[in-house]
Amino acid sequence: MQTLRVDVELGERAYAIHIGERLLSSAGLILPQLDLPRVAIVTNTTVAPLYLQQLAQALRAREVEVMSVVLEDGERYKDWFTLSRIYDALLEHRCDRRTTLIALGGGVVGDLAGFAAATYMRGIPFIQVPTTLLAQVDSSIGGKTGINHPLGKNMIGAFYQPRLVLADIEVLKSLPAREFSAGLAEVIKHGLVRDAAFFAWLEQNMEKLLAGDPQALAHAVRRCCEIKAAVVAEDERETGVRALLNFGHTFGHAIESGLGYGTWLHGEAVAAGMVMAADLSQRLGLITQPDVERIIALLKRASLPTAPPDIAPGRLLELMGADKKAEGGKLRFVLLDAIGSASVRADLPAAALQQALAYSRAA
Amino acid sequence: MQTLRVDVELGERAYAIHIGERLLSSAGLILPQLDLPRVAIVTNTTVAPLYLQQLAQALRAREVEVMSVVLEDGERYKDWFTLSRIYDALLEHRCDRRTTLIALGGGVVGDLAGFAAATYMRGIPFIQVPTTLLAQVDSSIGGKTGINHPLGKNMIGAFYQPRLVLADIEVLKSLPAREFSAGLAEVIKHGLVRDAAFFAWLEQNMEKLLAGDPQALAHAVRRCCEIKAAVVAEDERETGVRALLNFGHTFGHAIESGLGYGTWLHGEAVAAGMVMAADLSQRLGLITQPDVERIIALLKRASLPTAPPDIAPGRLLELMGADKKAEGGKLRFVLLDAIGSASVRADLPAAALQQALAYSRAA
Repeated sequence: MQTLRVDVELGERAYAIHIGERLLSSAGLILPQLDLPRVAIVTNTTVAPLYLQQLAQALRAREVEVMSVVLEDGERYKDWFTLSRIYDALLEHRCDRRTTLIALGGGVVGDLAGFAAATYMRGIPFIQVPTTLLAQVDSSIGGKTGINHPLGKNMIGAFYQPRLVLADIEVLKSLPAREFSAGLAEVIKHGLVRDAAFFAWLEQNMEKLLAGDPQALAHAVRRCCEIKAAVVAEDERETGVRALLNFGHTFGHAIESGLGYGTWLHGEAVAAGMVMAADLSQRLGLITQPDVERIIALLKRASLPTAPPDIAPGRLLELMGADKKAEGGKLRFVLLDAIGSASVRADLPAAALQQALAYSRAA
Repeated sequence: MQTLRVDVELGERAYAIHIGERLLSSAGLILPQLDLPRVAIVTNTTVAPLYLQQLAQALRAREVEVMSVVLEDGERYKDWFTLSRIYDALLEHRCDRRTTLIALGGGVVGDLAGFAAATYMRGIPFIQVPTTLLAQVDSSIGGKTGINHPLGKNMIGAFYQPRLVLADIEVLKSLPAREFSAGLAEVIKHGLVRDAAFFAWLEQNMEKLLAGDPQALAHAVRRCCEIKAAVVAEDERETGVRALLNFGHTFGHAIESGLGYGTWLHGEAVAAGMVMAADLSQRLGLITQPDVERIIALLKRASLPTAPPDIAPGRLLELMGADKKAEGGKLRFVLLDAIGSASVRADLPAAALQQALAYSRAA
């Protein structure tokens, strides 16, 4: 398979996303991005046995000095304590501002390593090597990094762009089915908010994706990267259009937070959150009931939840109030105007929101 | 006195520094910088009783909602634990991305609050109201923020520019003499690395400064801000010329670290470090012995130390090796080519460095 390339146009912070096979063994794409032949690979206990040696050896074969930091796996480790393990390792190895940090893993590893790179000595070079579908289509692109705070998810972080993203679709073969499905939630989201044709393509090709067909996977990853790259280029710091990519996330974060992080995967909570947001859009007359049913049907085929877990509507509302997308005290929601088109609403009738929550509880 | 203005030319991150009297009571400069009429003032237990009410009341009188976070005072509190107190307070008050953080205090408060602003919800608006001479002439300008790590000073941080700096020279009256002197070390540094005429002006006006003459103080603060603003505009992220402002700091950080942070004030360690760096410059034939003596004489008049404390040369070398200015294993030093002109040297003969350290120990 030919390696595909998507460019994130961000001026002096521009970078390329490469999508293909055997990228972990080809150090050739990484080398031109290094200031010094010295890298620190941050990964976790699940990914390290599978891919750390492959990447490290490819780099060492090109005379690059490689150190690694292996973190515990899971959203609950996305905290200050785990972050400081990265700092400690960098300082113990006397890494300076020209050491490049490589994140090898999923969204949690990317967020932690990215925030470490953003803040170690006020910023060092950073490369993303995402190993989950969710990270390849979403979290590794666009520079959102950070950690959770006991009072809220992703409350501490930075916008910090990588110099390069390598999305090796071969590694998706080792991904557990549940995590692959969670990634599909973000894939479907990209179609829902920006590209009706891609949503229709997903309806045609869901079984190929689930079967791991390389051409279908590469197409889906590329299309998501193109959509995300265009949105990020337009609005790097999320003051406008980028907020549309949070479709389903206000409900989703409340679900994750209400259950305790890690009970549902992020993509699972987003899937249920997208159904709730679609239902709310329908109640407001923005989309039709058949639209909602198309969305539910596609999420179901991807083995994703389409209703929230048993959390009282009042509690969900409270959790959403603490969500960082709340601005100036008002809740803001991303709603669908059609399949393939979304917009931010800050002036929702409270009744519609409460109905949507009550409905979802009954579902 | 007329309020003076210095502009930091940084494109979309440009901002103004205002220098004058009664700035703490004039909310008029702050208001246009706020996204929402909501601010969180971060200060410490020393500054709060003196100036917090003055600033808070001026803002409240203009319908701005004000909350405050009062931290312990001292370099040893520039750590994760104190930083997280700021995050906790912001989250407990449900501050969102449009709350502006105001640092009211010296370098430690500015560094902590600036890093909190850089990282809370991936960045919120930030204003510096420096209350020490050191913060007014140096640390509040240029966007360096961060905290210390047990293995090194300022190892965790970000470049994050304020939207405004208000340097009220009246507050310097309440500064203890020792802290005022420590600030003078950075004032003298600006002359040494960039402006021989300003260095000569300091030789003429040191007694006026020590007596708190408002015109002299405003002139000195403005000239330092102009020098720093020009350097930062040329090299925001310290890849080149900005490193010259670290003159005396490689030795200085080693002294601070060797004694334990807070034993000597930062400015005191920098003063001794500048003498060591000047001596090294003289040994390499870059400046003359009379130049070194002029520097020592001016520092002495400012009541600053001109020799390092009793730390073994080998230990100082070790401490400098861990300094973040070490790149690719080689130590880099900022040396003087003349009074008013500095450059970075990465190729020092080891013998000259060891002689400088031995000399300083004997001094």
